[in-house]
Amino acid sequence: MSEAAKTLDGWYCLHDFRTMNWTAWKSLSSDEREHAIQELLTFLEKWEVTEAQEKGSHAFYSIVGQKADFMMMLLRPTMQELNEIENAFNKTTFAEYTIPTYSYVSVVELSNYMASKDVDPETDPMIQGRLKPTLPKWEHICFYPMDKRREGNDNWYMLSMEERRDMMRSHGMIGRGYAGKVKQIITGSVGFDDWEWGVTLFANDVLQFKKLVYEMRFDEVSARFGEFGSFYVGNILPKEKVSSFLNV
Amino acid sequence: MSEAAKTLDGWYCLHDFRTMNWTAWKSLSSDEREHAIQELLTFLEKWEVTEAQEKGSHAFYSIVGQKADFMMMLLRPTMQELNEIENAFNKTTFAEYTIPTYSYVSVVELSNYMASKDVDPETDPMIQGRLKPTLPKWEHICFYPMDKRREGNDNWYMLSMEERRDMMRSHGMIGRGYAGKVKQIITGSVGFDDWEWGVTLFANDVLQFKKLVYEMRFDEVSARFGEFGSFYVGNILPKEKVSSFLNV
Amino acid sequence: MSEAAKTLDGWYCLHDFRTMNWTAWKSLSSDEREHAIQELLTFLEKWEVTEAQEKGSHAFYSIVGQKADFMMMLLRPTMQELNEIENAFNKTTFAEYTIPTYSYVSVVELSNYMASKDVDPETDPMIQGRLKPTLPKWEHICFYPMDKRREGNDNWYMLSMEERRDMMRSHGMIGRGYAGKVKQIITGSVGFDDWEWGVTLFANDVLQFKKLVYEMRFDEVSARFGEFGSFYVGNILPKEKVSSFLNV
Amino acid sequence: MSEAAKTLDGWYCLHDFRTMNWTAWKSLSSDEREHAIQELLTFLEKWEVTEAQEKGSHAFYSIVGQKADFMMMLLRPTMQELNEIENAFNKTTFAEYTIPTYSYVSVVELSNYMASKDVDPETDPMIQGRLKPTLPKWEHICFYPMDKRREGNDNWYMLSMEERRDMMRSHGMIGRGYAGKVKQIITGSVGFDDWEWGVTLFANDVLQFKKLVYEMRFDEVSARFGEFGSFYVGNILPKEKVSSFLNV
Amino acid sequence: MSEAAKTLDGWYCLHDFRTMNWTAWKSLSSDEREHAIQELLTFLEKWEVTEAQEKGSHAFYSIVGQKADFMMMLLRPTMQELNEIENAFNKTTFAEYTIPTYSYVSVVELSNYMASKDVDPETDPMIQGRLKPTLPKWEHICFYPMDKRREGNDNWYMLSMEERRDMMRSHGMIGRGYAGKVKQIITGSVGFDDWEWGVTLFANDVLQFKKLVYEMRFDEVSARFGEFGSFYVGNILPKEKVSSFLNV
Repeated sequence: MSEAAKTLDGWYCLHDFRTMNWTAWKSLSSDEREHAIQELLTFLEKWEVTEAQEKGSHAFYSIVGQKADFMMMLLRPTMQELNEIENAFNKTTFAEYTIPTYSYVSVVELSNYMASKDVDPETDPMIQGRLKPTLPKWEHICFYPMDKRREGNDNWYMLSMEERRDMMRSHGMIGRGYAGKVKQIITGSVGFDDWEWGVTLFANDVLQFKKLVYEMRFDEVSARFGEFGSFYVGNILPKEKVSSFLNV
Repeated sequence: MSEAAKTLDGWYCLHDFRTMNWTAWKSLSSDEREHAIQELLTFLEKWEVTEAQEKGSHAFYSIVGQKADFMMMLLRPTMQELNEIENAFNKTTFAEYTIPTYSYVSVVELSNYMASKDVDPETDPMIQGRLKPTLPKWEHICFYPMDKRREGNDNWYMLSMEERRDMMRSHGMIGRGYAGKVKQIITGSVGFDDWEWGVTLFANDVLQFKKLVYEMRFDEVSARFGEFGSFYVGNILPKEKVSSFLNV
Repeated sequence: MSEAAKTLDGWYCLHDFRTMNWTAWKSLSSDEREHAIQELLTFLEKWEVTEAQEKGSHAFYSIVGQKADFMMMLLRPTMQELNEIENAFNKTTFAEYTIPTYSYVSVVELSNYMASKDVDPETDPMIQGRLKPTLPKWEHICFYPMDKRREGNDNWYMLSMEERRDMMRSHGMIGRGYAGKVKQIITGSVGFDDWEWGVTLFANDVLQFKKLVYEMRFDEVSARFGEFGSFYVGNILPKEKVSSFLNV
Repeated sequence: MSEAAKTLDGWYCLHDFRTMNWTAWKSLSSDEREHAIQELLTFLEKWEVTEAQEKGSHAFYSIVGQKADFMMMLLRPTMQELNEIENAFNKTTFAEYTIPTYSYVSVVELSNYMASKDVDPETDPMIQGRLKPTLPKWEHICFYPMDKRREGNDNWYMLSMEERRDMMRSHGMIGRGYAGKVKQIITGSVGFDDWEWGVTLFANDVLQFKKLVYEMRFDEVSARFGEFGSFYVGNILPKEKVSSFLNV
Repeated sequence: MSEAAKTLDGWYCLHDFRTMNWTAWKSLSSDEREHAIQELLTFLEKWEVTEAQEKGSHAFYSIVGQKADFMMMLLRPTMQELNEIENAFNKTTFAEYTIPTYSYVSVVELSNYMASKDVDPETDPMIQGRLKPTLPKWEHICFYPMDKRREGNDNWYMLSMEERRDMMRSHGMIGRGYAGKVKQIITGSVGFDDWEWGVTLFANDVLQFKKLVYEMRFDEVSARFGEFGSFYVGNILPKEKVSSFLNV
């Protein structure tokens, strides 16, 4: 029997993708639109306070293509907080002019394939920082969910702990080659959503997403065992640009 | 030829997932909303009476992410009762402001892979209690449907009874390790809905869902033979919180 | 080369699943609703006359869960009659308050894997009765479409006639064990709809559907060669209960 | 390396399936409906002129089941003409009361697996007649798209020209057994639409579709290499019956 | 471990497919329609200026069949510019009468399987021209997304660099046979969208798309390793024809 890989789990995570109903949005008076924009900005400002207090983090990006117009990524210590934010958001006037297109529920996760035995993850500051991260405000975001394959001879979960660890190590080496260029947040969603993991990447040069994911695809752990869902790519939408993004 | 696994079957089960049409909901007067909320509460109270009389049970949870805003899980002695409740609910004013997103029809099931020959399941109180359970009022719910795989060399239904029993025993051992942390209700849906089983988990610590499902994934019965549908995760919505959940 | 299995074909068959648009339905005046219900009852009465004349048969059931609110199953001697009934139904006021959710086009079929050579199927009364059946008015219905698998080593259509006949015989034995408990109508849909067969089951005890389908799943013909679509399960909706089913 | 099968290509082909929005259609005044029906009839008459001039052909059938209410099949010498007809149709009042449900873009194709070397296909009248056919006005139509499988050991495109030719010959023999009963139009859609071919069958006895497709399924070329999309079956809708088909 | 194939990347690319809401479009006054058409033409003219300045390129085609009425293909130096154009377009009055049906985000890519070591791709004019191309104004367009397969023994990403290079070379030879007839733009979308590549073909003779894609399908790289998404085919829609295309 295979030995399960233990994980360390941090903040809960909600990715929420939405499209604007531009036709309805344009039918509002400019006062009504201004009011709705203020609602959205109030949310963003509240989230900034939470982030400053290190009680959570968030990201807000526009999305390229028809899959969505924008996405919100929220990290919070409990599933209840995520649910409350989502419900509060859905009750705003602004939300009436958005159409939900995709969401993802997960939790920040560190696998212990490469865990050191000398540190206590519950107190180690570096590990705690990675489990409860402040998301970077970089130019671009990329999100995709993924599974490890269980198919015929390509069954990740039937491999031994050693085989999995060796492959993950090689995989990690590729990631390390992008240090400073791509920041990667892995969130686990087994038992929470339809795929096993969500991968969120940040970069200032959007091309680095393609280079990283393509290079990894030739690595055995992806080549033989990776199953990928939809990819979303976007540009940062700082608070100052929200009004012009929504200006019609 | 393979020997079929016999099952014991208890109460029929309907999972019903819905999203609020918040825009329409907000367009109601507060009196109209109050009336609709009362309708919903009347249903919940009636279900509580049924539960107190041990003639059925139910669960009511909000769902995290865009898949649904809330879910109802209903257990009743007959399929007709489930259908009547569902139809009565659909005729309420409250239901006009909900959008059905997913449902699942099944029956509480105990497999007899580990059945003792010394008890009569028709009268044994422990077995009867598991077939006609009162659902726990724990903080979190997790639901997902699943199949046993029938693919090439990974064909569950071509295994012998002994092979299946051995794997199910090992599987059951993992479940037992979560006793007190995760309560699991297995419902069978062969002939009733699109997957073979529904799995409903309850926990006070939502992270236990992830730990349990992930640990099981390395077990041969899941690794080689499990096919999983969509996962739903949620937070309990006690009667007292319904008004604030729906308050706009 | 494989030898094709010949079939005997009887009445054409349309399964038509629909959901009520309850919000719109409730917006009607009670007179308008009464008029629409009468339209529906007029159809049912006309179909009863056809059935009494042995020129066709039908079934009318409510469906459990969100897949549909009710289903109609119609058997007629020609494809044109099915099309005419469907078009006439679609033009009623009642149909305006229904939303089509699924349909299936097929023809009652007897495979000749177990055909006797001593009878002329064109005149044999038992065979003719099975090809042009009067559907039972039992408490419950179950419908699902299916294919025989063509995948790698599990390719039904590459087996010899003898292999297929032996497996179908064993399969038939399981079915016979449910005589009196489950009535099964097999309809062929190769060239007519997206799956190769439709299976419609009737039972007074809904649990028999689960027992039958689950027992069959361990039989090689299902275990290795069965591919199944969506399952629908429902409760009979006799003419006398239509008004209360639709009463709001 | 495999040798590609060359094809002869004739008229371009558009299959266009639509459902009536009966509720909206009924809300029109009878004058408005009459006007819309006349628009449709004007199209049909224009297409008849084109057909009489041997500059194209068309078919118009009602479809059984919920997939569509009717379908139009159009053959024209250029892709531009198909696009123009489609756009002109979409701009009619009649089209406002239809809902597009499926379409297919292809070109009439003859494979040269069985080509004779003694004829010049560019001038041979029989070949030219098959590439630019006048569609039969038979009682029934059947349409489905298909691919040749490329999967593990069942990879059509890795077979040698000889293997493919032998299998296609056997396949053709089955088709020939239905001469006079089923007329078959093969259209190629590689590079044009989501499947590699569209198959359109015509018959006066609808059961012949089932017999032909089922018999072929046991033939190796279908059994091992055929992948099939949705099947549509319908009844002819001659110009004289259009008014009653649309009468409400 | 496999060696990744390096790529050269040029302009970012957005394919945007839309259907007209003809019913709503017809409900406008002719002045309102004229205004909306002018908005669209203003965009096209602006894009022409960009193209003349070699700061980007675009294509505008009608699409045959129900998948879309028209498509826009945009090439720009940055992802931000694509996002800005898309958002500006979505805010127009014209866009209110369109329904987004599909989009694709990618970047012009040259694989270096056949790279010469004697040129510096950053300055070589031919390579730079291919990375920042002016799209041809040919009669027809064909678009489809694709993946390289990773399945059992047919796993592209587990092949050695040599094996992949040899197959790509043979593949390239087929493409070269269509020089002057088909112009091909390959865009990479790993990390950007749901497939690994987008393929956009241009031709004056639409049949060349079918010939090219069909011939390639017999080539091992496609036969064993190609997975294809939906195919879109269309006719050029020059600025002068936009008014008549939209005239109702």
